[in-house]
Amino acid sequence: MPSDNPQPAFVLVRPQMGENIGGAARAMWNFGLDRMRIVAPRDGWPNQRAVAMASGAGRLLDEARLTETTEAALDDCHYVFATTARARGLTKPVVTPERAMEMAREKIAAGEKVAVLFGPERSGLENEDIAKANAIINVPVNPEFASLNLAQCVLLTAYEWQRGAVDVAPERIDMAKTEWASQSEMEALSAHYEQRLDTAGFFFPEPKAEGMKVNLRNMWSRMPLTRADVQMLHGIMRQMVRWKERGD
Amino acid sequence: MPSDNPQPAFVLVRPQMGENIGGAARAMWNFGLDRMRIVAPRDGWPNQRAVAMASGAGRLLDEARLTETTEAALDDCHYVFATTARARGLTKPVVTPERAMEMAREKIAAGEKVAVLFGPERSGLENEDIAKANAIINVPVNPEFASLNLAQCVLLTAYEWQRGAVDVAPERIDMAKTEWASQSEMEALSAHYEQRLDTAGFFFPEPKAEGMKVNLRNMWSRMPLTRADVQMLHGIMRQMVRWKERGD
Repeated sequence: MPSDNPQPAFVLVRPQMGENIGGAARAMWNFGLDRMRIVAPRDGWPNQRAVAMASGAGRLLDEARLTETTEAALDDCHYVFATTARARGLTKPVVTPERAMEMAREKIAAGEKVAVLFGPERSGLENEDIAKANAIINVPVNPEFASLNLAQCVLLTAYEWQRGAVDVAPERIDMAKTEWASQSEMEALSAHYEQRLDTAGFFFPEPKAEGMKVNLRNMWSRMPLTRADVQMLHGIMRQMVRWKERGD
Repeated sequence: MPSDNPQPAFVLVRPQMGENIGGAARAMWNFGLDRMRIVAPRDGWPNQRAVAMASGAGRLLDEARLTETTEAALDDCHYVFATTARARGLTKPVVTPERAMEMAREKIAAGEKVAVLFGPERSGLENEDIAKANAIINVPVNPEFASLNLAQCVLLTAYEWQRGAVDVAPERIDMAKTEWASQSEMEALSAHYEQRLDTAGFFFPEPKAEGMKVNLRNMWSRMPLTRADVQMLHGIMRQMVRWKERGD
């Protein structure tokens, strides 16, 4: 049974080696975190090497939520951090692990669901995954030597969670009444715009289309939208389509 | 050549596996520490497995000071921390890694030499080694699951050294170069949408129109939009209009 401490979910995106998944589970549980999600593990699931490595933290693997896509892993989340070695020119706030976990505590205390994305060992997160995040966590490593592995990155983030978690006051009570859009609502909004704009010929010329889509998704992910905002934005697009179809 | 940043020495006492010595070197150098001392490594010295594991941090192994005894490793030190999983009833101050590295910075700034002892993988430091320390570092792990390995313990301590050493603003928003939209650009965007949506019949029914416009303006005003976002949002609306006018 998962613990009932409110906490962020840690999402391993396309992890490669079972040993690293097991190592990440141990790193989490060292600091009392036990909500793991796993997106498309390279070697399938369950993974015996992961189980062997996790030893005392094997429960996290049994209870991990497995999904095919990053979107599915984030569907109930309101705020998402992406860990990267380098901030790659995406316009998003870049924060330290310390600040990120401070933000996570505030948001969780206000009733939001928070997730942290960790990329595959070799390559890290792809821009497409980073575009789904609201902010980037950058561990301030030696610029001459940045060689944190997956479990170490998980370890430092989990450590920062617990270092600050000790005396949490549920603050920001009045923000708690705001109904923020969930990640799946944001995905649906993003997909709606992308599909309609595609039909309308917005993603042109072809060689630029993919970049334009990433920019657009990136913009949505940075917007602090309420559920009411999302409804209004859907309504705007629906109305533009109706207007066109009316043809007057 | 070792860097000339004043810093604590990390002392590995009777480490067993070469891989862990190499892993500790990498963990240190990730956070800019490069003074390693090694006491009586089980498998002799140099150790090829340590070298292979250290990869880019191999210099730390070449420059490591090797001694037979813990005393010899500490001979020039003024203040010594010992890392332990459990404080074992020894009458010494027990501090967090955070507090320890804060103390280390103060002492080093005052010209003292500081060392941190890390024990052998399996058993940890013996009481005899701990007795040589002035204070104990205890990482606040989950009491139900304490399984930090040597390199992880080194990693967290090195991280705390550098976290406090860098005089960072708590939030390193890497968006300084971001060109945020100005108020007049936001006004123009809001007006553009309002006018087009009016034509398209979005503000309907009439009695609700004013409230809908206020909600929309409100939403724009809450969005942290860049100039590029604003251009994209103008482009989206222009494209919907073109699509309509093309009438295909």
